[in-house]
Amino acid sequence: MSHTTNQRIVLASRPAAEPTVDNFRLETVPVPELQDGQVLVRHHYLSLDPYMRGRMSESKSYANPQPLGETMIGGTVGEVVATRSPHFAVGDHVVGMGGWQQYAVVDAAQRGLLRKVDTTHVPLSAYLGAVGMPGVTAWYGLTQIIAPKEGETVVVSAASGAVGGAVGQLAKKRGARAVGVAGGADKCRWVVDELGFDACVDYKAHADVRSLSQALKEACPNGIDGYFENVGGMVLDAVMQRANAFSRIAMCGMISGYNGVPIPMSAPQLILINRMKVQGFIVGEHMEHWPAALAELGQAVATGALKYRETVAPDLAAAPEAFLGLLKGKNFGKQLVKLI
Amino acid sequence: MSHTTNQRIVLASRPAAEPTVDNFRLETVPVPELQDGQVLVRHHYLSLDPYMRGRMSESKSYANPQPLGETMIGGTVGEVVATRSPHFAVGDHVVGMGGWQQYAVVDAAQRGLLRKVDTTHVPLSAYLGAVGMPGVTAWYGLTQIIAPKEGETVVVSAASGAVGGAVGQLAKKRGARAVGVAGGADKCRWVVDELGFDACVDYKAHADVRSLSQALKEACPNGIDGYFENVGGMVLDAVMQRANAFSRIAMCGMISGYNGVPIPMSAPQLILINRMKVQGFIVGEHMEHWPAALAELGQAVATGALKYRETVAPDLAAAPEAFLGLLKGKNFGKQLVKLI
Repeated sequence: MSHTTNQRIVLASRPAAEPTVDNFRLETVPVPELQDGQVLVRHHYLSLDPYMRGRMSESKSYANPQPLGETMIGGTVGEVVATRSPHFAVGDHVVGMGGWQQYAVVDAAQRGLLRKVDTTHVPLSAYLGAVGMPGVTAWYGLTQIIAPKEGETVVVSAASGAVGGAVGQLAKKRGARAVGVAGGADKCRWVVDELGFDACVDYKAHADVRSLSQALKEACPNGIDGYFENVGGMVLDAVMQRANAFSRIAMCGMISGYNGVPIPMSAPQLILINRMKVQGFIVGEHMEHWPAALAELGQAVATGALKYRETVAPDLAAAPEAFLGLLKGKNFGKQLVKLI
Repeated sequence: MSHTTNQRIVLASRPAAEPTVDNFRLETVPVPELQDGQVLVRHHYLSLDPYMRGRMSESKSYANPQPLGETMIGGTVGEVVATRSPHFAVGDHVVGMGGWQQYAVVDAAQRGLLRKVDTTHVPLSAYLGAVGMPGVTAWYGLTQIIAPKEGETVVVSAASGAVGGAVGQLAKKRGARAVGVAGGADKCRWVVDELGFDACVDYKAHADVRSLSQALKEACPNGIDGYFENVGGMVLDAVMQRANAFSRIAMCGMISGYNGVPIPMSAPQLILINRMKVQGFIVGEHMEHWPAALAELGQAVATGALKYRETVAPDLAAAPEAFLGLLKGKNFGKQLVKLI
């Protein structure tokens, strides 16, 4: 076979605070020979996601840290280019966790590592976004924690991101008012005009919690019943000031604190005063919900009801820079790396 | 009838920060004549509870503020001394919300205002504590939010208080490890020796979160699965540092912040990292659970399985001082005012 060398990116060192490109190293390694039961996948796209920041550090988190010198973890979509498994044929489109590299050798017998997908109605890259982990994350937090009733108001931060965009659109579908928080007028305009949110607040236009909270009040005249949290910090404080009785917060991410900056919650007594429920979750721990979520998301993308946007880095060497940009909100929609 | 004058305590002014005795005023007023359907209750005991502090202020909370010049709100137990209702007879023991006064005229037809209680096996005062609102509060937060599994560890703050003491004993009954946090060696000793908690940490012996967190680690070798929050501030931060994956916090009170001192939660990202659920509640909004809770609590007190302690102020004039002491943790167990 012709697929003999593999470019990959490994974690070279752990960041002290803000990560830099020097924390990564590009390597060229041989593609190992396939063993019985294995398939070789050539990656078309690599997914970049905020959770990867957590894996770079050694501090306590829900997942083990990424080992130094090993290929960075990450979701991938691609095509089977060689197979010694009866379950996969050359040419199959697959989604997996191949990591930051061009090729992955996968043990096809191990359940859940590799999944065949149909690209007739859904583009391959969408399986890393709206019809993949980000989409299911949005679906789970919205339907299982926030569980909006018709007419309620749902706010989501990082609203133009892969998760946030899906949260608002799924909330609208359920009859709720969807309000985004995003960074910049361009993103906010797109969230309202293209994704159909009812309103979007540009947090960069507000210097403090008081000002942001006032903007949220105007965007949410009936208060806030559900909040899907991706960022933490000032946005969380401002949302809590507008939270209604019995409101729910789904804690999905707190990107503003990923570099170790303290992000205290100013007034936890509001949880009591408003009888709120605040719940953290990791979508990989709720596999039983994935089939229902993927069915709804796949259908919605196929029919054009669920919209999304992608920011695509051109090759593997561009992945570190793209990832650092994602942590700063430089991406617009789902951040991908194109590998082929 | 001979019950013609009534002493009562009204809210004279709102506290700027820490309340003082000057915020209250003792008045003597005539007892009004009974109308058809009304009963006159002579109070034996008045209950003092932390939630009353919230009612003294005008700031937004779950309940309307206590109006100035009107009788302070509060739970009471007493005896019917005159009746124009077919539902109550003179001599009936009753529990109600009679407020800070010697007598209350109650519209007996209005459901839920007055409840007849049996003092054969349960002392009358216990209906303001272990078999009353504080007991049901403990029961609801423990069973409906924390829902401990056998072998899990449940921590409760203000552990020697009316609510906290019940939380730990109910947790033990369900096979959990019960660990208290209380102020002072005397209270801690009593919580362990008399109430049967597995351990109790004296927060006054710790100057900072780090030290308190270390003490909690020793008291909770398997981490913390459930936390019943009555105080907020440093104790909450320390508990969260020891929280296990999928742990639950029932937010019942945050007395450390009642005077307007900021009590930020230092690391809300732990809610995400540990996939915690943090939920506020007010027991009066869950009346459907009261019968089951009161049945268990009444049975447990009658058989001696559920223990409690009372601090009793001698007369109505002593109520303000006793209430201010309660807010500072000067009480030991349920704080009552004896009126007869």
